[in-house]
Amino acid sequence: MSELLTPAELETRLRDVGRQRYHNLHPFHAMLHGGQCSRGQVQAWALNRYYYQAMIPLKDASLMGRCEDPALRREWRKRLDDHDGDEGRPGGIERWLKLTDGLGLDRDAVTSTRLLLPATRFAVQAYVHYVRERSLLEAVASCLTEMFSSQIIIERMAGMLRHYDYVTPDVLSYFDKRPPQAQRDASFALEWVTQHAVTREQQDAVIATLTFKCDVLWSMLDALHHAYVSPGWIPPGAFVPDPTDGR
Amino acid sequence: MSELLTPAELETRLRDVGRQRYHNLHPFHAMLHGGQCSRGQVQAWALNRYYYQAMIPLKDASLMGRCEDPALRREWRKRLDDHDGDEGRPGGIERWLKLTDGLGLDRDAVTSTRLLLPATRFAVQAYVHYVRERSLLEAVASCLTEMFSSQIIIERMAGMLRHYDYVTPDVLSYFDKRPPQAQRDASFALEWVTQHAVTREQQDAVIATLTFKCDVLWSMLDALHHAYVSPGWIPPGAFVPDPTDGR
Repeated sequence: MSELLTPAELETRLRDVGRQRYHNLHPFHAMLHGGQCSRGQVQAWALNRYYYQAMIPLKDASLMGRCEDPALRREWRKRLDDHDGDEGRPGGIERWLKLTDGLGLDRDAVTSTRLLLPATRFAVQAYVHYVRERSLLEAVASCLTEMFSSQIIIERMAGMLRHYDYVTPDVLSYFDKRPPQAQRDASFALEWVTQHAVTREQQDAVIATLTFKCDVLWSMLDALHHAYVSPGWIPPGAFVPDPTDGR
Repeated sequence: MSELLTPAELETRLRDVGRQRYHNLHPFHAMLHGGQCSRGQVQAWALNRYYYQAMIPLKDASLMGRCEDPALRREWRKRLDDHDGDEGRPGGIERWLKLTDGLGLDRDAVTSTRLLLPATRFAVQAYVHYVRERSLLEAVASCLTEMFSSQIIIERMAGMLRHYDYVTPDVLSYFDKRPPQAQRDASFALEWVTQHAVTREQQDAVIATLTFKCDVLWSMLDALHHAYVSPGWIPPGAFVPDPTDGR
């Protein structure tokens, strides 16, 4: 039988998963922050990613809905605050819509999600269902991709501001706030799973969960690339960039 | 408000969805039955599609598990018989494994599903969750793609037998049995939804369900094409064809 990992060993194993599978390694990410995307491709990315943003609070509320520890619920509630905001204090979803607005997308078309790639919908729903159906340990562990998200956000912001004249700091306000929030959440979650995974089987479940979550993010970029880059086959019913918008 | 469709109008609308979105229109299907797939691509298709086959009985059992009409449960039970078989009478899943065996895939690698494309897993799970979570009407309607499946199966069998020397009638025994089963099931389901969708809203839900189901099947072929044809990017951890198996 495999032995229990030390906290440091567990963290190393988790960082290995990120190094091998996090979506900063995906070619679409390189295209996006490297300025090789057409405006239509950037629009497609933002429109599809909106669905991920919009479903995050449902995922978090589902987790809290079966969490019996008030302290964990209080900690987790910060995520709802971050994403849903308050009157007069826009949350992450609202700030994401500033991005899609800035890219010239119709807000109703974005929020209706009717132009999504089906693969986006299926990947995001897989994440939501995972959090609803697996153990609380796995539900918490599924956010551990935030251990790696600050770097990708910083790369994305700098690259998009440099390369796309229609992207301004105001349009990217979503990303301003995320790195400290993500770091706070990732530190908390890593400490929590380290404390609560008390068997090797549970530690392996934490590692498998991070792998699953990386697959979710990766498959979203795969679907974007397939539809809008190469071979460029847009599935029936999905968003079609305006061919006269040639930037 | 939209008016109720006649049964003939509803059927026409459903057939329109199939004509526009069924996966017989996907280029990967044309490659597969047209003999343009390498053996590795045929293997990848069969290995990924196995997961769909394997999850069908769970989907059907979930439907029966919330169906209060014994007559509908009895009718639906035929599907479990078809897929799961009996001792001495192999069902559809077992016959699908004859295909993956015949293609030289390790049976344990197939049934473990550890080499799946994540997008396959997410699409199939979206289908299973849809059947579990939506109305019984939508759950039944989600099988209506079988209205179109006989034709694709016949094309696939004839094309694969003609073009791939390692594909024999015995290896394709899965497909022998499916057309009459699918036709029986599709006729039953079409009649059932026609009777039970008694408002225009319900009829629209039936049509939307068929659209959803076509998206599931389409996105599975998109993922295969992206990973194994063009650009040929296999996601981390997924099946990698043996490069020395050059057929």
